[in-house]
Amino acid sequence: MRSLITSLDLARHYDAEDPLGGRRALFEIPEGVTYLVGHSLGPLTRSAAARADRALRQEWGEGMVRSWNSAGWIDLAGEVGDAIAPLIGAAPGEVVVCDSVSVNLFKLAGAALPLARKRLVMVDDHEFPTDQYIAEGLAELAGGEVRRLPAGEEGYGEGGVLIRSVVSYRSGEIVDVAAAERRAREAGTVIVWDLSHAAGAVPLNLSADGARLAAGCTYKYLNGGPGAPAYVYAAEAFAEKLSSPLPGWLGHAAPFAFDSGYTPAAGVQRFVAGTPPILSLSALAGALEAFEGVSPSALHGKAGVLGDIVLQRAEGMGLAASSPKDRSKRGGHVSLSHEHGYAVVQALAEEGVLSDFRTPDTIRFGLSPLFLSAEEVWGVMDRLEDILRTKRYEEARFQVRSKVT
Amino acid sequence: MRSLITSLDLARHYDAEDPLGGRRALFEIPEGVTYLVGHSLGPLTRSAAARADRALRQEWGEGMVRSWNSAGWIDLAGEVGDAIAPLIGAAPGEVVVCDSVSVNLFKLAGAALPLARKRLVMVDDHEFPTDQYIAEGLAELAGGEVRRLPAGEEGYGEGGVLIRSVVSYRSGEIVDVAAAERRAREAGTVIVWDLSHAAGAVPLNLSADGARLAAGCTYKYLNGGPGAPAYVYAAEAFAEKLSSPLPGWLGHAAPFAFDSGYTPAAGVQRFVAGTPPILSLSALAGALEAFEGVSPSALHGKAGVLGDIVLQRAEGMGLAASSPKDRSKRGGHVSLSHEHGYAVVQALAEEGVLSDFRTPDTIRFGLSPLFLSAEEVWGVMDRLEDILRTKRYEEARFQVRSKVT
Repeated sequence: MRSLITSLDLARHYDAEDPLGGRRALFEIPEGVTYLVGHSLGPLTRSAAARADRALRQEWGEGMVRSWNSAGWIDLAGEVGDAIAPLIGAAPGEVVVCDSVSVNLFKLAGAALPLARKRLVMVDDHEFPTDQYIAEGLAELAGGEVRRLPAGEEGYGEGGVLIRSVVSYRSGEIVDVAAAERRAREAGTVIVWDLSHAAGAVPLNLSADGARLAAGCTYKYLNGGPGAPAYVYAAEAFAEKLSSPLPGWLGHAAPFAFDSGYTPAAGVQRFVAGTPPILSLSALAGALEAFEGVSPSALHGKAGVLGDIVLQRAEGMGLAASSPKDRSKRGGHVSLSHEHGYAVVQALAEEGVLSDFRTPDTIRFGLSPLFLSAEEVWGVMDRLEDILRTKRYEEARFQVRSKVT
Repeated sequence: MRSLITSLDLARHYDAEDPLGGRRALFEIPEGVTYLVGHSLGPLTRSAAARADRALRQEWGEGMVRSWNSAGWIDLAGEVGDAIAPLIGAAPGEVVVCDSVSVNLFKLAGAALPLARKRLVMVDDHEFPTDQYIAEGLAELAGGEVRRLPAGEEGYGEGGVLIRSVVSYRSGEIVDVAAAERRAREAGTVIVWDLSHAAGAVPLNLSADGARLAAGCTYKYLNGGPGAPAYVYAAEAFAEKLSSPLPGWLGHAAPFAFDSGYTPAAGVQRFVAGTPPILSLSALAGALEAFEGVSPSALHGKAGVLGDIVLQRAEGMGLAASSPKDRSKRGGHVSLSHEHGYAVVQALAEEGVLSDFRTPDTIRFGLSPLFLSAEEVWGVMDRLEDILRTKRYEEARFQVRSKVT
């Protein structure tokens, strides 16, 4: 990392040339807030608010049950999936929105088990906790083995099902998907990718990289709203081989035939289980409008520039960082360490800079490229430097703790 | 069935004395619509709209990620569960809102399997389809047997896990929960009740009846909104014996410790998996305000009176009914048969009366007692009589088809 931006003037110059700069106007961020928690809960956009309002008042209030047809609710999960597809390098029809990441990981890993060489579920022992718990719950129910991989053990050659994040929720490090898939295929391993900390911040090329299965969250960089429904990706040819262990009525080929027997819908649509939460799904549909015409590479490039500012100035303050210095290997957030990290995060919040903390000592700055500017990030580092110099974090009392990663 | 209401005057008299009559003003039902589809998607209430607006604009828009604490999002699933509890005869802390009915049935039946005498999943062959598919998916993954029970075979004595609706989605017939639980316990059978067509329309006494596990939907009689999240009930003492096969991070005893190992939260809270859809959940929280101070017995009593009007007048028109004539054995909807049922439903819709159709010939009238009046239902039967007499259903073209039961 060698930041190109070494002064406030250079930050302003970068912003003036930033092709993404105009997107900030699409967001409703309160005055006085610098929001570095877009990796946890993205902020409200005008389009999300408008779409949620419409779903509430016109579609539900006036259209009522007719809106399943007249407002297109019945097709919404697939349409929103199609809007996510270009952000993760998938083709239309390969992505559908449904359930939560936890439930989707379960469905995908469960469906993958019969196709793996061994009845084995693997997950890193430093993986996001829900991924570990789901691996355990699935193995227990399905009568398989669960194995937690220590750092450095990749598992691609083991012949089981592997759940792995593309971007680490701790360090922000990016995994090489294409290389992993090549090795996994040779060994009869099926990888279920968790895209939660990746989509909307790094370029993903699932189809080109040979990824077969993935799930991800929509309330982080995609700004879908609190607890917005997650998504499932299944490569078109692969999807047809899979049976969802949670075959719900909306994943049936003909849901309104009310058959007693289950016939899976085509492709990834079979992973829809129950009725999706339409108000939350509508807000997500609106939020994705902010990404229209934006390339994931541009998002990642800008997140990298913003992260470089943080890392270079943190180095100057003597703060350790666990994130990769090479921006091409780093997702949208950077992680710094400080023994009083929690108090530092509180002190920043008192001054309107929202960030988050992860035990034991990690300060995370989410650098959502769609609404943050280099000048803002530069200003955050000024404040951080001042807080550390004056040690006023010791008196931080205002509690702000991110509750959701 | 012998309806007490045999004239428009008597209907008006009933309404004038109806203690639930004032609740209609809580709803935002469009002018000119008579809504007999509350058993499919309940209408918007003012309180649901207000609560959803607040969640969108103030909580997400202004509070942002801080709202997990400051707006109480983190406790909302349990709080809304507690608001549902009195409607189903459960104690506070025995109900939590999460996921869809399909996913919840899977979690509960999967958790019940190790406690049943046999690794067997049973479901009626005329049960709501998603319940049948989930039973099959679970048995397949867990290496158990699935058995579909033909009409008349109750399965309580079989020693497996049984998924059963308290109110049939077709006929509206009510099952005797207490008697079923007595027989099931003797035989080592665990019943997972589906309350979808019951809650909000019939009195449920889960605790008193000895029910151990149940799931249900909130967008029918509870008016929670399209695809509003479902709920799980687990009897307090029983819950502690259960492991959810989908152990998500919000069902962990200490979600923010980010432990690698899963320790279930106390009681039913362990069945929460991923992050709940807050906008949809907030609308549901608001919708339930309309039930404050209402007893389920009063709801069922009124639904029975309204159903009696329909059945008695239908008999006069020569229409067959598949619903029980005894209102104490009938849920909130009544089902009539007509060979051109679909066209009849369309003809009614042309005149502002929304109802729904189920193959092959079933017309369903949902008699939501919270917002319908006897006069309205009397008027519906006038229209139906006229449509049948003039056969103007033959020209019905306006398509209204309920997409979600």
